[in-house]
Amino acid sequence: MPVQSTNSASDLIRIGIVGGTGYTGAELLRILARHPRAAISVITSRSESGLSVAELFPHLRGHIDLRFTEPDSGALADCDLVFFATPNGTAMRSAPELLERGVRVIDLAADFRLRDPAVWEHWYGMPHHCPELLAEAVYGLPELNRAAVRTARLVANPGCYPTAVTLGFLPLLEARAIDPSWLVADAKSGASGAGRKVTTGLLMAEIGESFKAYSVTGHRHAPEIAQNLMQFSGVEVNLTFVPHLVPMIRGIEATLYARLADPAVDLERLYAERYAGEAFIDLMPGGHPDTRSVRGANLCRIAVARQGDTGVVVVQSVIDNLVKGAAGQAVQNMNLMFGLDESMGLESLALLP
Amino acid sequence: MPVQSTNSASDLIRIGIVGGTGYTGAELLRILARHPRAAISVITSRSESGLSVAELFPHLRGHIDLRFTEPDSGALADCDLVFFATPNGTAMRSAPELLERGVRVIDLAADFRLRDPAVWEHWYGMPHHCPELLAEAVYGLPELNRAAVRTARLVANPGCYPTAVTLGFLPLLEARAIDPSWLVADAKSGASGAGRKVTTGLLMAEIGESFKAYSVTGHRHAPEIAQNLMQFSGVEVNLTFVPHLVPMIRGIEATLYARLADPAVDLERLYAERYAGEAFIDLMPGGHPDTRSVRGANLCRIAVARQGDTGVVVVQSVIDNLVKGAAGQAVQNMNLMFGLDESMGLESLALLP
Amino acid sequence: MPVQSTNSASDLIRIGIVGGTGYTGAELLRILARHPRAAISVITSRSESGLSVAELFPHLRGHIDLRFTEPDSGALADCDLVFFATPNGTAMRSAPELLERGVRVIDLAADFRLRDPAVWEHWYGMPHHCPELLAEAVYGLPELNRAAVRTARLVANPGCYPTAVTLGFLPLLEARAIDPSWLVADAKSGASGAGRKVTTGLLMAEIGESFKAYSVTGHRHAPEIAQNLMQFSGVEVNLTFVPHLVPMIRGIEATLYARLADPAVDLERLYAERYAGEAFIDLMPGGHPDTRSVRGANLCRIAVARQGDTGVVVVQSVIDNLVKGAAGQAVQNMNLMFGLDESMGLESLALLP
Amino acid sequence: MPVQSTNSASDLIRIGIVGGTGYTGAELLRILARHPRAAISVITSRSESGLSVAELFPHLRGHIDLRFTEPDSGALADCDLVFFATPNGTAMRSAPELLERGVRVIDLAADFRLRDPAVWEHWYGMPHHCPELLAEAVYGLPELNRAAVRTARLVANPGCYPTAVTLGFLPLLEARAIDPSWLVADAKSGASGAGRKVTTGLLMAEIGESFKAYSVTGHRHAPEIAQNLMQFSGVEVNLTFVPHLVPMIRGIEATLYARLADPAVDLERLYAERYAGEAFIDLMPGGHPDTRSVRGANLCRIAVARQGDTGVVVVQSVIDNLVKGAAGQAVQNMNLMFGLDESMGLESLALLP
Repeated sequence: MPVQSTNSASDLIRIGIVGGTGYTGAELLRILARHPRAAISVITSRSESGLSVAELFPHLRGHIDLRFTEPDSGALADCDLVFFATPNGTAMRSAPELLERGVRVIDLAADFRLRDPAVWEHWYGMPHHCPELLAEAVYGLPELNRAAVRTARLVANPGCYPTAVTLGFLPLLEARAIDPSWLVADAKSGASGAGRKVTTGLLMAEIGESFKAYSVTGHRHAPEIAQNLMQFSGVEVNLTFVPHLVPMIRGIEATLYARLADPAVDLERLYAERYAGEAFIDLMPGGHPDTRSVRGANLCRIAVARQGDTGVVVVQSVIDNLVKGAAGQAVQNMNLMFGLDESMGLESLALLP
Repeated sequence: MPVQSTNSASDLIRIGIVGGTGYTGAELLRILARHPRAAISVITSRSESGLSVAELFPHLRGHIDLRFTEPDSGALADCDLVFFATPNGTAMRSAPELLERGVRVIDLAADFRLRDPAVWEHWYGMPHHCPELLAEAVYGLPELNRAAVRTARLVANPGCYPTAVTLGFLPLLEARAIDPSWLVADAKSGASGAGRKVTTGLLMAEIGESFKAYSVTGHRHAPEIAQNLMQFSGVEVNLTFVPHLVPMIRGIEATLYARLADPAVDLERLYAERYAGEAFIDLMPGGHPDTRSVRGANLCRIAVARQGDTGVVVVQSVIDNLVKGAAGQAVQNMNLMFGLDESMGLESLALLP
Repeated sequence: MPVQSTNSASDLIRIGIVGGTGYTGAELLRILARHPRAAISVITSRSESGLSVAELFPHLRGHIDLRFTEPDSGALADCDLVFFATPNGTAMRSAPELLERGVRVIDLAADFRLRDPAVWEHWYGMPHHCPELLAEAVYGLPELNRAAVRTARLVANPGCYPTAVTLGFLPLLEARAIDPSWLVADAKSGASGAGRKVTTGLLMAEIGESFKAYSVTGHRHAPEIAQNLMQFSGVEVNLTFVPHLVPMIRGIEATLYARLADPAVDLERLYAERYAGEAFIDLMPGGHPDTRSVRGANLCRIAVARQGDTGVVVVQSVIDNLVKGAAGQAVQNMNLMFGLDESMGLESLALLP
Repeated sequence: MPVQSTNSASDLIRIGIVGGTGYTGAELLRILARHPRAAISVITSRSESGLSVAELFPHLRGHIDLRFTEPDSGALADCDLVFFATPNGTAMRSAPELLERGVRVIDLAADFRLRDPAVWEHWYGMPHHCPELLAEAVYGLPELNRAAVRTARLVANPGCYPTAVTLGFLPLLEARAIDPSWLVADAKSGASGAGRKVTTGLLMAEIGESFKAYSVTGHRHAPEIAQNLMQFSGVEVNLTFVPHLVPMIRGIEATLYARLADPAVDLERLYAERYAGEAFIDLMPGGHPDTRSVRGANLCRIAVARQGDTGVVVVQSVIDNLVKGAAGQAVQNMNLMFGLDESMGLESLALLP
């Protein structure tokens, strides 16, 4: 089997990946293996050091010819860009030194997503290691912050639920078309959203053929979503957010509910104008987007609808949690940061059925 | 394999089933086969007439020794009770004559659920054949209408979504503890909820490993739910209801959202008092009920929670759509109508994992 | 919710369960909770001591009102019967003392399944603690050893694969109708067959939507099957056995291949005669039994067929690995040991769909 | 969303697809949409004529800007190549005229797979319309017939099961390393293998969470496999083939059993030598390839093993039935027929998890 063809070395972005043994790491490898400008120099894992990447992830056999190494700032410091696909609380320990040495950083975990360190510490249960970087970190949702991402040294890649919910509410809130005093986001995710953690609660025999809500009293993606919604609306927002676990592997669907401030607003037009030219947003007027239609693709499909004449708007927003909700969005950010075509390496169609 | 042991004939309720080739029919057979007082006399199916029940449903081999017959009011008229497990619009054609001849009727479809024939005709797309019976028909949700069910000749067995949503909101609305001006019910169902219809949209390769909303602009269970909520609250209710399809076979989970009228209300106590003594309601304070925990059981599990101090209440309500959402509830109604222990034949535990 | 009605205490079998936190333990509890003669006195778990059974297994809420306790031979010694639903190697440590004190024992693990301690030690990787009991232990496959089970003190409950494969080959081998020099058993199991072990390899995101073989070079159920086949055939058997993992929760299907010694043998008749009167074997001539048709039921469904005129016989054998392959068969053995109707508590129909 | 960038028109292969509404058609579209040398000119469907492709298959939105048209030999005759993704019996009616007019043809159905029209007619239940073309048709398994494919006008794309089973047995039979007097192929497929047919037997609620064999008395892929095996071994082969249905969407796993003619043969080396240089075969010595590791990829993963010293070899062979088992292999054949790099457009990695 052929290994990825290489461009001339000078064209390539030297990439390091910290913590590539989880699903977002694997997905990053899958995408970067086919990216024409990416050269993965080093991939680290404390637990799997020495193991061949292809042994852990058989779908990468013949495409990624690397072994996991011990985290080593030396090798990472020679990179142009380091992705952190680590548990929360890891990137904040290493990012300052890497930035210092001129390496750009994209953190796929939550370390740099919240502006307020006190809020972060409340939800993540640990002190923040470098709160001074929070102001500089750019929240990497290109549809919201494209210009800032282009020049960022440090990008906080959004959470999966926040991506789906924020993109769903964005046109409505920017246009002040809904009543912010109560918004409901009922979100559903496949099992890979919880990562490759070894816990009883993620066993096939526990969660197959079953459905449930979790974290009803509060989930840590809620403050991230609220921060987004308030940023672009400029108003106080009262959001109720409940996540659910779906017996499938990939995919998030968020159904969003709000009351229209102006019942006469042209919803289709509002969304069409806001997302005109966005390569990774697909609007489906009158549709019911299903998660399989974005499986493996860096795409958010959105449909917006009214239910009768009740003055209520219902938005459906679907993504692949590992792509537009994690690794794909990270590569989209990388493309922006390095002046590449934003779609480079992200052209794959969804795998359906 | 042993066939169901029989009691002395005089003790037994002679039962007819019209249209037993779908999933609710099969589930009715599964439950009645072990019911100590039920004797299935006749089961009809226009399409499968002549076929052995056990050939269509192999799990009934050795337990149900009947063949489907052509619908024949003669045989049905000799029954004490006839269940209609038919498409909408069938029971309304045969029920008047059966009632006339002293046979009691439980319709598992929607023909007698809505009080207002105009609303029924709007949502079901056909004229109602016997609107004069709508006033007499009892909506068979025992937790709401137990006394009326006991003496009913004609029971409208509730829809699956309406069962889960109504039982979830009931204590809050009866106590006027929530603001009825906007309620949200985000409901999710396994594929068996759509019945055994042969359509592309229910193929494994179409809906496996995927999740989506449907009927966002309006679903016909919405007016049924609204009718229930208004009945016991006595106030106008504005409900937004969106159903979703889960890649699993059995189970409904409904997540319900409302704003508390009195933020200080003791939610646990409210539910505990309302459902004290109910054999088929199980409250899980602080829990996240999963659909597998009611798989195959005639049970509604409910958990009620607050999300922070936002004044919003979140209710989770789970049922097996084929049991408490259809056939189990129908047998519960039968037990009440015939003066039996309400739990007779419904004692099975859920099948987990 | 009502707790199991109790008979007069003197009628009841006092039961202890050691290690009830796995799936076979949970299934044993589900079945025994509805068994008219069973009274569960004690259930032990080293890891979950103090926890309410209903908290671990929500489907048992209202049906089992016990807490896990520390293993304690005192309480167990007061039982009439102790089930071991433990990892391999546990029962052999406690069984001798219990037997000594007059308690009967059914081990759902493998400790007493193999006659030859050397073979056991090879496959299970530890020395056997009480090889002197191996001769007395009765292999609890009632269709093979019914009489011996009735009088046994110590029953080795068969493995799940060995149950399906042995029952499938039994009539052919007893009748010397096939060539024993090469038999192939290609077996497939749902994820619950691996137990409730917390390993990456059992995560939903790892094994959902995927299929694979495992243990192709040798699985420890192979010597158990071979021992069975040789016992009743009296000849040397060369078996190739390969297990596979199916992306579902419950169910085993084994497809068995052999060459007919006498191509003219009447296969249907052979099976019908061998299994006449067996309550838990269902023959489906010309059929393709699916695992769902036995889900939750104590039943082995078998179909036997020829493929063209090649002289090859193909047997399909399906069970629910947790019922006829584990807990249901254990209760069937209990019924025999205590002189009860063999079917008591095992009358439930399969849950389909 | 960007539509596929186009090359200069003269470089492109003008492609027609007949019957693109099934899963193999959709998969062909997914692959060709990203193929640098493919230009889809026309796609026909009698049932969906006029419908936009993207409406039927939402994952193709923005990538395929075509509507289904009525079958029309005029438009097809202007193509360089026509794929038939039709039910069996369709291609044989249109292929002769297209070939006449200089259009090359790849049939993804079975019309040209069997050499002997009598065998074809027996298994496919209809007379063959152009038996005179059977001798010319090249069986498009490149690993077996690469040279012939390069110059073919008419390619019979192999069946999904035959691809997995043939590639698994090929090195053993070519080397005469096994006893051909009895081979067993126990094969398992996801639901998409049965196509997008609307039948009860493919509903999620019928086949989810269940496993079964089918066609045990004979499946029409058996003569196709047998023809392959005899072609390259030159000896008579007695094959027992049983297919099974797995509750998943994509993937085939075939477990193959044979007795070694020479027990000392070096199996790993045999396979390594036979498949050296093959881009779409991946050998996994000592492994257990799972179907997910080839999901969406044009790849056959094979592991070969012995079970103890019984003289039996066990081969595991996995493919994605829609890719290497259908559309991917068809594009591989197209590449060969048009002198392109055999891997063009087929470089995607599997989607895992």
